[in-house]
Amino acid sequence: MIKGNAIVGQSGGPTAAINATLAGVVRGAYESGCIDKIYGALNGVAGLLEDNYCVLNDILTGENELKLLENTPAAALGSCRMKLPDPDKDTAPFEKLFELFEKLDIKYFFYIGGNDSMDTVDKLSRYAKKICSDLRVMGVPKTIDNDLCGTDHTPGFGSAAKFIATVMQEIIRDTAVYTVEAVTIVEIMGRDAGWLTAASALPRKVCGVAPDLVYLPEVVFDYDKFFEDIQKAFEKKPNIVVAVSEGIRLADGRYVGESTQSGATDVFGHKYLAGTGKMLENAVKEKLGCKVRSVELNLPQRCASHIASRCDLEESVSVGRAAVACAVRGESAKMMCFEREDGEYSVKCIARDISEIANKIKYVPREYITERGNNVTDECVDYLLPLINGEVSITYKDGLPVHFVIER
Amino acid sequence: MIKGNAIVGQSGGPTAAINATLAGVVRGAYESGCIDKIYGALNGVAGLLEDNYCVLNDILTGENELKLLENTPAAALGSCRMKLPDPDKDTAPFEKLFELFEKLDIKYFFYIGGNDSMDTVDKLSRYAKKICSDLRVMGVPKTIDNDLCGTDHTPGFGSAAKFIATVMQEIIRDTAVYTVEAVTIVEIMGRDAGWLTAASALPRKVCGVAPDLVYLPEVVFDYDKFFEDIQKAFEKKPNIVVAVSEGIRLADGRYVGESTQSGATDVFGHKYLAGTGKMLENAVKEKLGCKVRSVELNLPQRCASHIASRCDLEESVSVGRAAVACAVRGESAKMMCFEREDGEYSVKCIARDISEIANKIKYVPREYITERGNNVTDECVDYLLPLINGEVSITYKDGLPVHFVIER
Repeated sequence: MIKGNAIVGQSGGPTAAINATLAGVVRGAYESGCIDKIYGALNGVAGLLEDNYCVLNDILTGENELKLLENTPAAALGSCRMKLPDPDKDTAPFEKLFELFEKLDIKYFFYIGGNDSMDTVDKLSRYAKKICSDLRVMGVPKTIDNDLCGTDHTPGFGSAAKFIATVMQEIIRDTAVYTVEAVTIVEIMGRDAGWLTAASALPRKVCGVAPDLVYLPEVVFDYDKFFEDIQKAFEKKPNIVVAVSEGIRLADGRYVGESTQSGATDVFGHKYLAGTGKMLENAVKEKLGCKVRSVELNLPQRCASHIASRCDLEESVSVGRAAVACAVRGESAKMMCFEREDGEYSVKCIARDISEIANKIKYVPREYITERGNNVTDECVDYLLPLINGEVSITYKDGLPVHFVIER
Repeated sequence: MIKGNAIVGQSGGPTAAINATLAGVVRGAYESGCIDKIYGALNGVAGLLEDNYCVLNDILTGENELKLLENTPAAALGSCRMKLPDPDKDTAPFEKLFELFEKLDIKYFFYIGGNDSMDTVDKLSRYAKKICSDLRVMGVPKTIDNDLCGTDHTPGFGSAAKFIATVMQEIIRDTAVYTVEAVTIVEIMGRDAGWLTAASALPRKVCGVAPDLVYLPEVVFDYDKFFEDIQKAFEKKPNIVVAVSEGIRLADGRYVGESTQSGATDVFGHKYLAGTGKMLENAVKEKLGCKVRSVELNLPQRCASHIASRCDLEESVSVGRAAVACAVRGESAKMMCFEREDGEYSVKCIARDISEIANKIKYVPREYITERGNNVTDECVDYLLPLINGEVSITYKDGLPVHFVIER
């Protein structure tokens, strides 16, 4: 058990649960018996490179603060989208970081993030090994996309899924009030993997309503089959609801939403997507002539903490705590993962080698999607349903949720 | 006190509170002592013209059912968008309706709806008077837009405002995590009046965060002033959040969402018609070159009953109940209104002549908007804040809210 200080950072896109994991890491540090100070990196490694950090012991001083933080959306420490260079080619940023770690007597580094952040964990671990540093580096996953390998699911996904399933049920009630033929297309986040879009089908099992058609990026999208699917759905009812991933692609590999974009990419080279629903809206209007509207669920999918999943938030806290416990036990270069246990739903937290996980994507398996590729199977719904279970008790003031703010 | 039956219908766009008002009317009928059966018009007057109705006494049999209905979004009886003809020119639909009323021994007619629905109430009242019918016709307002005259505010508005204010706070937390200069434009419903967009400023009073700029349809929108506003906001912080009504217009009267600056086309080569937020997103991207994203809050604004305002739902029930009490006391051709009482927030329900209310729009007064027209005043926030107060206890099953469904 190495005594010293720890630092925790958040990175990548915010979620409704990333602060719960932060609270978990802090709880773990407080309980560890060997971590004196727990620092917070402000705006991830990018902030650390500019000496931006805070002392969380002074900020998260009690149960009230930790509880509020757990129910606060977005990254309280701030985030960044920074890809570190290959430590075998460019050591400059690593030298700067490890200098700071030495100055602050940092023995433990925790990084909460998605796929790109696990790449940072991987590179920091490799550099630490290279310079024979005893720094222990742990990745703690978060992503609403649920597309990390090695874990049953990702913290943050359950809350996003609960928001999507809840709002989907409400949208279906809303669109069902008229008797005129109409199509409502709901565009859901998910560039590569269709997990979030699959979650829109959850109300089917609970209350018998669900989108009539569900299209994921895992299956090639075909306009003609899509129009056929809608016409067939109209035989049964006048109000058709379609759930569609932003990342669906045509047979030639182009994104359906691509033609509305300038081709701009983000710093990781990912194509920036928007407008898949709008594209389909225009196409259906043109082809079938019926009333069509599209709804892009957009940012609230990743920050609607007011309808967070209790299962998700509790697991997010526990995985942060477990990361500290693992590091204290001597593990490093690992990402914390969930393993689902047999029988009634429960998970245990285990650590897996980061090198096996970083830069890989977990897709929705083909057997979770119907043969025609226009919906998800009951097996998929069964896998997803426990993740949205339970509600969180939110503190309100004057009608609005109270958030915990760390000044940056 | 005329003994007989009553019928209630819902019309226009759904809200999170229109079923609470339906429950209120039904509660009022059960308590009246003179209404035997309370029928439900399925899909409003359009449905009635096709003999589509149900007996609510058989459906809403107890407190459990009424409570669930109160927390169910959208119109449980179904809705319609039907404008009846002038009863002085075409009596055919009126004759058909009154034939049905006679057959069912209907003495009381309640219609829950917005501006267009109050037109229906007005015309039915006029026809009833013309044929010397003793039918009592009452309008019960609902609209998320808060744009009906004669009432302090409209049932349904408070819940929409609470969703908007809640999600706005979450979006502001979300967008604040990065340090890069970025503009997030949030498009909010409101074709004519900016009440909903004004509600996005509510967190300002509660927790000190709010959109940096707020544009309502009540003030002419000017691109140059808009760009100046953003540049000025960037002097203080890197993450600018803009709230904008879908209905903002240029000096020449055209809607901002109507103009066609974007040259993008869809896969079929058709011009891509963007919304107001998307138009502004493109304009800012082009003019200022910074990161921009737009978020259209869309349908959840009117159906997100999972975050309904308790104040709104309680008032929505009470106004339905009051409508029955007024009709039983002998009133007719009236719309139920809220009058705000002095001192601590409370309202009383009063009935006003429908002819003075129908087909008029209540705009956000100019004194509720800052001089430059790019935000709302504290006075406006003070007026709005009580309307989002309180949370509703929702029944959940397997992680999703339980809704009450009336088969149609």
